[in-house]
Amino acid sequence: MSELTQLIDLVRKFRDERDWAQFHNAKDLAAGLSIEAGELLEQFLWKQPQEADSAKVRAELADVLIFALLLAHEQKIDLNQAIRDKLAENAAKYPVDKAKGRSTKYDEL
Amino acid sequence: MSELTQLIDLVRKFRDERDWAQFHNAKDLAAGLSIEAGELLEQFLWKQPQEADSAKVRAELADVLIFALLLAHEQKIDLNQAIRDKLAENAAKYPVDKAKGRSTKYDEL
Amino acid sequence: MSELTQLIDLVRKFRDERDWAQFHNAKDLAAGLSIEAGELLEQFLWKQPQEADSAKVRAELADVLIFALLLAHEQKIDLNQAIRDKLAENAAKYPVDKAKGRSTKYDEL
Amino acid sequence: MSELTQLIDLVRKFRDERDWAQFHNAKDLAAGLSIEAGELLEQFLWKQPQEADSAKVRAELADVLIFALLLAHEQKIDLNQAIRDKLAENAAKYPVDKAKGRSTKYDEL
Repeated sequence: MSELTQLIDLVRKFRDERDWAQFHNAKDLAAGLSIEAGELLEQFLWKQPQEADSAKVRAELADVLIFALLLAHEQKIDLNQAIRDKLAENAAKYPVDKAKGRSTKYDEL
Repeated sequence: MSELTQLIDLVRKFRDERDWAQFHNAKDLAAGLSIEAGELLEQFLWKQPQEADSAKVRAELADVLIFALLLAHEQKIDLNQAIRDKLAENAAKYPVDKAKGRSTKYDEL
Repeated sequence: MSELTQLIDLVRKFRDERDWAQFHNAKDLAAGLSIEAGELLEQFLWKQPQEADSAKVRAELADVLIFALLLAHEQKIDLNQAIRDKLAENAAKYPVDKAKGRSTKYDEL
Repeated sequence: MSELTQLIDLVRKFRDERDWAQFHNAKDLAAGLSIEAGELLEQFLWKQPQEADSAKVRAELADVLIFALLLAHEQKIDLNQAIRDKLAENAAKYPVDKAKGRSTKYDEL
Protein backbone atom coordinates (compact mmCIF):
# COMPACT_ATOMS: atom_id res chain seq x y z
CA MET A 1 0.00 0.00 0.00
CA SER A 2 1.34 3.47 -0.83
CA GLU A 3 2.38 5.87 1.93
CA LEU A 4 -0.46 8.31 1.17
CA THR A 5 -3.01 5.49 1.15
CA GLN A 6 -1.71 4.33 4.51
CA LEU A 7 -2.05 7.84 5.93
CA ILE A 8 -5.58 8.16 4.56
CA ASP A 9 -6.42 4.86 6.27
CA LEU A 10 -5.05 6.17 9.58
CA VAL A 11 -7.05 9.38 9.32
CA ARG A 12 -10.21 7.49 8.36
CA LYS A 13 -9.77 5.14 11.28
CA PHE A 14 -9.51 8.14 13.63
CA ARG A 15 -12.65 9.62 12.08
CA ASP A 16 -14.69 6.41 12.07
CA GLU A 17 -13.91 5.60 15.71
CA ARG A 18 -15.62 8.94 16.48
CA ASP A 19 -18.44 8.44 13.96
CA TRP A 20 -17.58 11.75 12.33
CA ALA A 21 -18.12 10.83 8.65
CA GLN A 22 -21.63 12.30 9.00
CA PHE A 23 -20.09 15.79 9.40
CA HIS A 24 -17.40 15.40 6.75
CA ASN A 25 -19.00 16.63 3.55
CA ALA A 26 -16.52 18.09 1.04
CA LYS A 27 -17.57 21.71 1.65
CA ASP A 28 -16.98 21.57 5.40
CA LEU A 29 -13.70 19.71 4.88
CA ALA A 30 -12.54 22.49 2.53
CA ALA A 31 -13.64 25.08 5.12
CA GLY A 32 -11.82 23.15 7.86
CA LEU A 33 -8.65 22.98 5.78
CA SER A 34 -8.82 26.74 5.22
CA ILE A 35 -9.32 27.38 8.95
CA GLU A 36 -6.32 25.18 9.79
CA ALA A 37 -4.25 27.00 7.16
CA GLY A 38 -5.08 30.20 9.04
CA GLU A 39 -3.86 28.66 12.29
CA LEU A 40 -0.65 27.65 10.54
CA LEU A 41 -0.18 31.19 9.21
CA GLU A 42 -0.84 32.58 12.70
CA GLN A 43 2.43 30.99 13.87
CA PHE A 44 4.25 33.50 11.67
CA LEU A 45 2.16 36.61 12.46
CA TRP A 46 4.21 39.67 13.49
CA LYS A 47 7.36 37.56 13.13
CA GLN A 48 10.31 37.03 10.88
CA PRO A 49 10.00 33.61 9.17
CA GLN A 50 12.67 32.01 11.35
CA GLU A 51 11.07 33.20 14.62
CA ALA A 52 8.06 30.88 14.48
CA ASP A 53 7.81 28.05 17.01
CA SER A 54 8.82 25.01 14.95
CA ALA A 55 6.85 22.49 17.05
CA LYS A 56 3.66 24.51 16.55
CA VAL A 57 4.31 24.93 12.83
CA ARG A 58 4.75 21.16 12.57
CA ALA A 59 1.50 20.48 14.44
CA GLU A 60 -0.54 23.01 12.44
CA LEU A 61 0.85 21.76 9.13
CA ALA A 62 -0.15 18.25 10.17
CA ASP A 63 -3.72 19.47 10.81
CA VAL A 64 -3.83 20.92 7.30
CA LEU A 65 -2.65 17.59 5.90
CA ILE A 66 -5.23 15.65 7.89
CA PHE A 67 -8.02 17.69 6.30
CA ALA A 68 -6.37 17.35 2.89
CA LEU A 69 -6.28 13.55 3.26
CA LEU A 70 -9.92 13.43 4.37
CA LEU A 71 -11.00 15.61 1.45
CA ALA A 72 -8.97 13.56 -1.02
CA HIS A 73 -10.63 10.42 0.29
CA GLU A 74 -14.10 11.95 0.21
CA GLN A 75 -13.63 13.22 -3.36
CA LYS A 76 -11.82 10.04 -4.54
CA ILE A 77 -8.76 12.07 -5.53
CA ASP A 78 -5.45 10.27 -6.10
CA LEU A 79 -3.26 12.92 -4.43
CA ASN A 80 0.00 11.66 -5.90
CA GLN A 81 -1.34 11.87 -9.45
CA ALA A 82 -3.15 15.16 -8.76
CA ILE A 83 0.12 16.75 -7.61
CA ARG A 84 1.97 15.47 -10.69
CA ASP A 85 -0.77 16.74 -13.00
CA LYS A 86 -0.83 20.13 -11.30
CA LEU A 87 2.95 20.50 -11.55
CA ALA A 88 2.65 19.80 -15.28
CA GLU A 89 -0.08 22.43 -15.54
CA ASN A 90 1.96 24.93 -13.54
CA ALA A 91 5.00 24.22 -15.72
CA ALA A 92 2.96 25.36 -18.73
CA LYS A 93 1.80 28.50 -16.89
CA TYR A 94 5.32 29.28 -15.65
CA PRO A 95 7.76 28.37 -18.46
CA VAL A 96 11.31 28.28 -17.14
CA ASP A 97 12.60 30.91 -19.57
CA LYS A 98 9.96 33.43 -18.50
CA ALA A 99 9.58 32.61 -14.81
CA LYS A 100 13.19 32.01 -13.80
CA GLY A 101 14.13 34.13 -10.82
CA ARG A 102 10.85 36.04 -10.90
CA SER A 103 7.95 35.83 -8.44
CA THR A 104 5.48 37.42 -10.88
CA LYS A 105 2.05 35.75 -11.20
CA TYR A 106 1.56 33.85 -14.47
CA ASP A 107 -1.03 36.29 -15.82
CA GLU A 108 1.50 39.12 -15.63
CA LEU A 109 4.55 37.25 -16.89
CA MET B 1 12.53 6.50 -1.16
CA SER B 2 9.16 7.11 0.44
CA GLU B 3 6.24 8.45 -1.61
CA LEU B 4 6.19 11.78 0.25
CA THR B 5 9.95 12.20 -0.18
CA GLN B 6 9.55 11.53 -3.90
CA LEU B 7 6.83 14.16 -4.15
CA ILE B 8 8.94 16.68 -2.24
CA ASP B 9 11.76 16.01 -4.69
CA LEU B 10 9.44 16.64 -7.63
CA VAL B 11 8.21 19.91 -6.15
CA ARG B 12 11.74 21.03 -5.32
CA LYS B 13 12.87 20.25 -8.86
CA PHE B 14 10.03 22.41 -10.22
CA ARG B 15 11.05 25.20 -7.87
CA ASP B 16 14.77 25.00 -8.51
CA GLU B 17 14.40 25.01 -12.30
CA ARG B 18 12.75 28.42 -11.79
CA ASP B 19 15.22 29.60 -9.13
CA TRP B 20 12.35 30.28 -6.73
CA ALA B 21 13.95 29.12 -3.47
CA GLN B 22 14.92 32.76 -2.85
CA PHE B 23 11.20 33.64 -2.42
CA HIS B 24 10.24 30.53 -0.42
CA ASN B 25 10.74 31.51 3.18
CA ALA B 26 8.46 29.68 5.63
CA LYS B 27 6.20 32.69 6.25
CA ASP B 28 5.40 33.26 2.60
CA LEU B 29 4.92 29.52 2.06
CA ALA B 30 2.39 29.48 4.91
CA ALA B 31 0.68 32.54 3.39
CA GLY B 32 0.66 30.86 -0.02
CA LEU B 33 -0.83 27.69 1.43
CA SER B 34 -3.58 29.75 3.08
CA ILE B 35 -4.33 31.59 -0.18
CA GLU B 36 -4.58 28.29 -2.06
CA ALA B 37 -6.87 26.92 0.66
CA GLY B 38 -9.12 29.91 -0.06
CA GLU B 39 -9.16 29.05 -3.76
CA LEU B 40 -10.09 25.49 -2.87
CA LEU B 41 -12.93 26.69 -0.65
CA GLU B 42 -14.11 29.01 -3.43
CA GLN B 43 -15.04 25.93 -5.48
CA PHE B 44 -17.79 25.27 -2.92
CA LEU B 45 -19.04 28.85 -2.45
CA TRP B 46 -22.82 29.29 -2.83
CA LYS B 47 -23.06 25.55 -3.56
CA GLN B 48 -24.11 22.30 -2.04
CA PRO B 49 -21.03 20.13 -1.39
CA GLN B 50 -21.76 17.82 -4.32
CA GLU B 51 -22.18 20.68 -6.81
CA ALA B 52 -18.51 21.67 -6.91
CA ASP B 53 -16.53 21.04 -10.11
CA SER B 54 -14.49 17.97 -9.20
CA ALA B 55 -11.63 18.70 -11.63
CA LYS B 56 -11.17 22.16 -10.10
CA VAL B 57 -11.35 20.78 -6.55
CA ARG B 58 -8.65 18.27 -7.49
CA ALA B 59 -6.40 20.97 -8.99
CA GLU B 60 -6.83 23.36 -6.04
CA LEU B 61 -6.23 20.61 -3.49
CA ALA B 62 -3.03 19.75 -5.37
CA ASP B 63 -1.90 23.38 -5.09
CA VAL B 64 -2.44 23.24 -1.33
CA LEU B 65 -0.37 20.06 -1.15
CA ILE B 66 2.43 21.56 -3.23
CA PHE B 67 2.79 24.40 -0.72
CA ALA B 68 2.55 21.93 2.17
CA LEU B 69 5.38 19.85 0.70
CA LEU B 70 7.55 22.94 0.14
CA LEU B 71 6.94 24.13 3.69
CA ALA B 72 7.64 20.68 5.12
CA HIS B 73 10.92 20.62 3.21
CA GLU B 74 11.86 24.14 4.24
CA GLN B 75 11.11 23.41 7.91
CA LYS B 76 12.65 19.92 7.82
CA ILE B 77 9.34 18.36 8.92
CA ASP B 78 8.80 14.63 8.44
CA LEU B 79 5.16 14.90 7.31
CA ASN B 80 4.35 11.24 7.86
CA GLN B 81 5.53 11.34 11.47
CA ALA B 82 3.97 14.79 12.05
CA ILE B 83 0.56 13.48 10.96
CA ARG B 84 0.89 10.41 13.20
CA ASP B 85 1.93 12.57 16.17
CA LYS B 86 -0.94 15.02 15.57
CA LEU B 87 -3.48 12.20 15.36
CA ALA B 88 -2.23 10.94 18.73
CA GLU B 89 -2.55 14.45 20.15
CA ASN B 90 -6.04 14.85 18.68
CA ALA B 91 -7.02 11.46 20.10
CA ALA B 92 -6.22 12.78 23.58
CA LYS B 93 -8.23 15.97 22.93
CA TYR B 94 -11.16 14.04 21.48
CA PRO B 95 -11.54 10.81 23.51
CA VAL B 96 -13.84 8.38 21.71
CA ASP B 97 -16.30 8.13 24.60
CA LYS B 98 -16.81 11.90 24.72
CA ALA B 99 -16.48 12.83 21.05
CA LYS B 100 -18.38 9.99 19.38
CA GLY B 101 -21.06 11.31 17.05
CA ARG B 102 -20.49 14.91 18.17
CA SER B 103 -18.92 17.78 16.22
CA THR B 104 -18.28 19.86 19.34
CA LYS B 105 -14.84 21.49 19.64
CA TYR B 106 -12.59 19.88 22.24
CA ASP B 107 -12.68 22.83 24.62
CA GLU B 108 -16.45 22.50 24.91
CA LEU B 109 -16.68 18.69 25.11
CA MET C 1 -28.55 57.57 8.79
CA SER C 2 -25.09 56.42 9.93
CA GLU C 3 -22.28 55.88 7.43
CA LEU C 4 -22.18 52.11 8.02
CA THR C 5 -25.95 51.84 7.62
CA GLN C 6 -25.71 53.76 4.35
CA LEU C 7 -23.01 51.39 3.09
CA ILE C 8 -25.06 48.36 4.10
CA ASP C 9 -27.99 49.82 2.14
CA LEU C 10 -25.79 50.25 -0.93
CA VAL C 11 -24.52 46.67 -0.71
CA ARG C 12 -28.05 45.32 -0.18
CA LYS C 13 -29.32 47.25 -3.18
CA PHE C 14 -26.55 45.72 -5.32
CA ARG C 15 -27.48 42.27 -4.03
CA ASP C 16 -31.24 42.66 -4.39
CA GLU C 17 -31.01 43.94 -7.97
CA ARG C 18 -29.39 40.59 -8.73
CA ASP C 19 -31.75 38.55 -6.54
CA TRP C 20 -28.78 37.09 -4.66
CA ALA C 21 -30.23 37.06 -1.13
CA GLN C 22 -31.20 33.43 -1.76
CA PHE C 23 -27.48 32.48 -1.79
CA HIS C 24 -26.40 34.71 1.09
CA ASN C 25 -26.75 32.55 4.16
CA ALA C 26 -24.36 33.44 7.00
CA LYS C 27 -22.11 30.41 6.46
CA ASP C 28 -21.46 31.15 2.78
CA LEU C 29 -20.96 34.84 3.56
CA ALA C 30 -18.33 33.91 6.14
CA ALA C 31 -16.70 31.58 3.59
CA GLY C 32 -16.82 34.35 0.97
CA LEU C 33 -15.22 36.81 3.35
CA SER C 34 -12.44 34.33 4.08
CA ILE C 35 -11.84 33.73 0.37
CA GLU C 36 -11.65 37.49 -0.28
CA ALA C 37 -9.23 37.85 2.65
CA GLY C 38 -7.03 35.30 0.86
CA GLU C 39 -7.15 37.38 -2.33
CA LEU C 40 -6.15 40.44 -0.30
CA LEU C 41 -3.23 38.56 1.25
CA GLU C 42 -2.19 37.36 -2.21
CA GLN C 43 -1.32 40.95 -3.12
CA PHE C 44 1.54 40.70 -0.60
CA LEU C 45 2.78 37.20 -1.44
CA TRP C 46 6.54 36.94 -2.09
CA LYS C 47 6.78 40.69 -1.50
CA GLN C 48 7.93 43.24 1.00
CA PRO C 49 4.89 45.04 2.48
CA GLN C 50 5.50 48.23 0.50
CA GLU C 51 5.81 46.39 -2.83
CA ALA C 52 2.13 45.47 -3.14
CA ASP C 53 0.02 47.16 -5.83
CA SER C 54 -1.97 49.70 -3.84
CA ALA C 55 -4.93 49.83 -6.25
CA LYS C 56 -5.34 46.07 -5.98
CA VAL C 57 -5.01 46.12 -2.19
CA ARG C 58 -7.73 48.80 -2.09
CA ALA C 59 -10.05 46.76 -4.33
CA GLU C 60 -9.53 43.49 -2.41
CA LEU C 61 -10.00 45.19 0.95
CA ALA C 62 -13.26 46.64 -0.38
CA ASP C 63 -14.41 43.11 -1.32
CA VAL C 64 -13.71 41.96 2.24
CA LEU C 65 -15.76 44.87 3.58
CA ILE C 66 -18.65 44.15 1.23
CA PHE C 67 -18.91 40.63 2.63
CA ALA C 68 -18.53 41.95 6.18
CA LEU C 69 -21.41 44.38 5.62
CA LEU C 70 -23.62 41.68 4.13
CA LEU C 71 -22.87 39.33 7.03
CA ALA C 72 -23.49 42.08 9.60
CA HIS C 73 -26.85 42.78 7.96
CA GLU C 74 -27.78 39.11 7.74
CA GLN C 75 -26.87 38.51 11.40
CA LYS C 76 -28.37 41.82 12.60
CA ILE C 77 -25.01 42.93 14.01
CA ASP C 78 -24.45 46.61 14.82
CA LEU C 79 -20.88 46.77 13.53
CA ASN C 80 -20.00 50.03 15.27
CA GLN C 81 -21.04 48.68 18.67
CA ALA C 82 -19.50 45.25 17.96
CA ILE C 83 -16.13 46.88 17.24
CA ARG C 84 -16.33 48.98 20.43
CA ASP C 85 -17.26 45.92 22.50
CA LYS C 86 -14.45 43.87 20.98
CA LEU C 87 -11.88 46.59 21.65
CA ALA C 88 -12.99 46.60 25.29
CA GLU C 89 -12.64 42.81 25.41
CA ASN C 90 -9.22 42.97 23.75
CA ALA C 91 -8.15 45.68 26.21
CA ALA C 92 -8.83 43.22 29.05
CA LYS C 93 -6.88 40.46 27.25
CA TYR C 94 -3.98 42.79 26.45
CA PRO C 95 -3.49 45.12 29.44
CA VAL C 96 -1.24 48.03 28.50
CA ASP C 97 1.34 47.29 31.18
CA LYS C 98 1.81 43.70 29.97
CA ALA C 99 1.33 44.12 26.24
CA LYS C 100 3.18 47.37 25.57
CA GLY C 101 5.74 46.94 22.82
CA ARG C 102 5.21 43.17 22.65
CA SER C 103 3.53 41.16 19.89
CA THR C 104 3.00 38.12 22.12
CA LYS C 105 -0.44 36.45 22.00
CA TYR C 106 -2.57 37.08 25.08
CA ASP C 107 -2.42 33.48 26.30
CA GLU C 108 1.38 33.72 26.52
CA LEU C 109 1.64 37.21 28.01
CA MET D 1 -15.90 63.31 11.60
CA SER D 2 -17.30 60.33 9.68
CA GLU D 3 -18.24 57.12 11.47
CA LEU D 4 -15.47 55.11 9.80
CA THR D 5 -12.88 57.78 10.65
CA GLN D 6 -14.05 57.70 14.27
CA LEU D 7 -13.68 53.92 14.37
CA ILE D 8 -10.21 54.12 12.83
CA ASP D 9 -9.28 56.62 15.53
CA LEU D 10 -10.51 54.25 18.24
CA VAL D 11 -8.55 51.34 16.81
CA ARG D 12 -5.41 53.46 16.42
CA LYS D 13 -5.72 54.66 20.01
CA PHE D 14 -5.91 51.03 21.17
CA ARG D 15 -2.84 50.21 19.09
CA ASP D 16 -0.78 53.23 20.10
CA GLU D 17 -1.41 52.72 23.82
CA ARG D 18 0.30 49.36 23.33
CA ASP D 19 3.02 50.68 21.02
CA TRP D 20 2.06 48.14 18.38
CA ALA D 21 2.47 50.28 15.23
CA GLN D 22 5.96 48.80 14.91
CA PHE D 23 4.43 45.36 14.13
CA HIS D 24 1.62 46.62 11.89
CA ASN D 25 3.08 46.60 8.40
CA ALA D 26 0.50 46.07 5.65
CA LYS D 27 1.53 42.48 4.94
CA ASP D 28 1.11 41.31 8.52
CA LEU D 29 -2.17 43.21 8.80
CA ALA D 30 -3.45 41.40 5.70
CA ALA D 31 -2.27 38.09 7.19
CA GLY D 32 -3.96 38.95 10.49
CA LEU D 33 -7.20 39.80 8.73
CA SER D 34 -7.09 36.46 6.92
CA ILE D 35 -6.45 34.57 10.16
CA GLU D 36 -9.39 36.33 11.84
CA ALA D 37 -11.57 35.52 8.83
CA GLY D 38 -10.69 31.86 9.45
CA GLU D 39 -11.77 32.18 13.08
CA LEU D 40 -15.04 33.71 11.91
CA LEU D 41 -15.60 30.85 9.48
CA GLU D 42 -14.80 28.34 12.23
CA GLN D 43 -17.99 29.41 14.03
CA PHE D 44 -19.92 27.79 11.17
CA LEU D 45 -17.83 24.63 10.76
CA TRP D 46 -19.85 21.37 10.76
CA LYS D 47 -23.00 23.45 11.25
CA GLN D 48 -26.05 24.74 9.46
CA PRO D 49 -25.78 28.53 9.03
CA GLN D 50 -28.36 29.25 11.74
CA GLU D 51 -26.63 27.00 14.31
CA ALA D 52 -23.61 29.27 14.87
CA ASP D 53 -23.23 31.05 18.21
CA SER D 54 -24.29 34.60 17.37
CA ALA D 55 -22.22 36.28 20.11
CA LYS D 56 -19.07 34.56 18.82
CA VAL D 57 -19.88 35.44 15.21
CA ARG D 58 -20.31 39.08 16.28
CA ALA D 59 -16.96 39.09 18.14
CA GLU D 60 -15.03 37.42 15.31
CA LEU D 61 -16.55 39.71 12.69
CA ALA D 62 -15.48 42.67 14.84
CA ASP D 63 -11.90 41.32 14.87
CA VAL D 64 -11.95 41.17 11.06
CA LEU D 65 -13.16 44.77 10.95
CA ILE D 66 -10.48 45.93 13.38
CA PHE D 67 -7.77 44.58 11.07
CA ALA D 68 -9.56 46.07 8.05
CA LEU D 69 -9.61 49.50 9.71
CA LEU D 70 -5.92 49.26 10.63
CA LEU D 71 -4.99 48.23 7.11
CA ALA D 72 -7.11 51.00 5.57
CA HIS D 73 -5.36 53.51 7.82
CA GLU D 74 -1.91 52.12 7.08
CA GLN D 75 -2.54 52.16 3.32
CA LYS D 76 -4.36 55.52 3.38
CA ILE D 77 -7.49 53.94 1.87
CA ASP D 78 -10.80 55.80 2.10
CA LEU D 79 -12.93 52.74 2.84
CA ASN D 80 -16.24 54.40 2.02
CA GLN D 81 -15.06 55.42 -1.44
CA ALA D 82 -13.24 52.12 -1.98
CA ILE D 83 -16.48 50.20 -1.32
CA ARG D 84 -18.44 52.45 -3.69
CA ASP D 85 -15.81 52.07 -6.41
CA LYS D 86 -15.72 48.30 -5.99
CA LEU D 87 -19.49 48.02 -6.19
CA ALA D 88 -19.35 49.96 -9.47
CA GLU D 89 -16.65 47.61 -10.74
CA ASN D 90 -18.62 44.54 -9.62
CA ALA D 91 -21.75 45.94 -11.31
CA ALA D 92 -19.85 45.93 -14.60
CA LYS D 93 -18.65 42.35 -14.01
CA TYR D 94 -22.11 41.16 -12.98
CA PRO D 95 -24.65 42.96 -15.20
CA VAL D 96 -28.15 42.57 -13.79
CA ASP D 97 -29.57 40.94 -16.91
CA LYS D 98 -26.90 38.21 -16.90
CA ALA D 99 -26.37 37.72 -13.16
CA LYS D 100 -29.93 37.91 -11.84
CA GLY D 101 -30.77 34.89 -9.72
CA ARG D 102 -27.48 33.13 -10.61
CA SER D 103 -24.50 32.51 -8.34
CA THR D 104 -22.13 31.88 -11.27
CA LYS D 105 -18.73 33.58 -11.14
CA TYR D 106 -18.35 36.48 -13.58
CA ASP D 107 -15.82 34.69 -15.79
CA GLU D 108 -18.37 31.94 -16.48
CA LEU D 109 -21.47 34.13 -16.90
